[in-house]
Amino acid sequence: MGTSTRQQRTHKAILNAAEDLFLRDGFLGVSMDQVAETAAVSKQTVYAHFQSKEALFLAFTQALMEPAGDELGKRVSEQSLDLEFEDYLRAFAHQQLAIVVTPKLMQLRRLAIGEATRFPELGATLHKLGPARSINRLEFAFRHYRNIGQIRAPNLREAASNFNWLIMGAPVNDAMILGDAAIPGRELLEAHAEECVRVFLAAYGANPPAYFE
Amino acid sequence: MGTSTRQQRTHKAILNAAEDLFLRDGFLGVSMDQVAETAAVSKQTVYAHFQSKEALFLAFTQALMEPAGDELGKRVSEQSLDLEFEDYLRAFAHQQLAIVVTPKLMQLRRLAIGEATRFPELGATLHKLGPARSINRLEFAFRHYRNIGQIRAPNLREAASNFNWLIMGAPVNDAMILGDAAIPGRELLEAHAEECVRVFLAAYGANPPAYFE
Repeated sequence: MGTSTRQQRTHKAILNAAEDLFLRDGFLGVSMDQVAETAAVSKQTVYAHFQSKEALFLAFTQALMEPAGDELGKRVSEQSLDLEFEDYLRAFAHQQLAIVVTPKLMQLRRLAIGEATRFPELGATLHKLGPARSINRLEFAFRHYRNIGQIRAPNLREAASNFNWLIMGAPVNDAMILGDAAIPGRELLEAHAEECVRVFLAAYGANPPAYFE
Repeated sequence: MGTSTRQQRTHKAILNAAEDLFLRDGFLGVSMDQVAETAAVSKQTVYAHFQSKEALFLAFTQALMEPAGDELGKRVSEQSLDLEFEDYLRAFAHQQLAIVVTPKLMQLRRLAIGEATRFPELGATLHKLGPARSINRLEFAFRHYRNIGQIRAPNLREAASNFNWLIMGAPVNDAMILGDAAIPGRELLEAHAEECVRVFLAAYGANPPAYFE
């Protein structure tokens, strides 16, 4: 038990070192020696926990993305399906923007994109834990709302993908290309979320709301 | 005149070499020596045309992106504003997907994103010649269509950005993360364009079309 806890602490220390170094210097810019030094362990210990730099990078990607996705799932849970469709959409849009459009996750995404060609497993992991997880959740929720007559969409996956990218397209892509300075402030993100909900309901809602004014 | 033509040919040869090498090996993976060798000129000549690797990368970025943007402007020109709003949107969506979602431009975009933190001028150039140029065009067109009563949008720039990312969000981001294999085929892209036009008109059209069935 004591051993297991110490091993867990070491595991965590290596992941923390990996996070600091990789986010700053990218996959190619970091050596396993640096990871060992920053984590204050031997290089042998690093390799005992993670068999390669690729494996460490994948583990660090999961360690950053899984909690973010879990947090979104907690804030917009299956209980949220008790909400009116419009309120569900609003909650999802606001929470997703707040949780995902952050400097750490945006930098991880830049790194994964920069390495996409050389390191396809990284892109696949990021896709599975990021957009695909969100779109799967939306599709699940939309099925419920279609069953109770609140959404009109012959293709729920397409509707889920369109809602996801309507929300994330502008802020994520601006952050990708222009850097963290392009991450919009909270107020702008909230106004954006509201407009995305309005657009989506006009196109897919069972009772499109009256147009503004 | 003969000299100028030879200089232009040399300029073009260096840009072509830069394109081949940078798209394959990225900014950090290419040296000016390799560019000189591939272009079959001296390194001194490379530096006579482009003062630094950064300047060469920016020039290569412009050389790839400007013609793509010009081509979109030619295919969906100011004359296209004579079209019904729906047909204008359809033309824009189809042409933008066909011209932009290509392996070369997607790879350039991955490189720019991978370098965004270290090389902000590159991101700014890509943004100006890419999404910002498209959104500016849409905003210009939307002003015309609002004047003739075919679009209802208090904020034309927001409407333009939402249309742009509704179209580009899914295919561009999948290509960024998952690589060229994720670029959808022509038929899928066309179906996507049609659905984006339908969604956009439902939200912003003056006479939202009847819902399918």
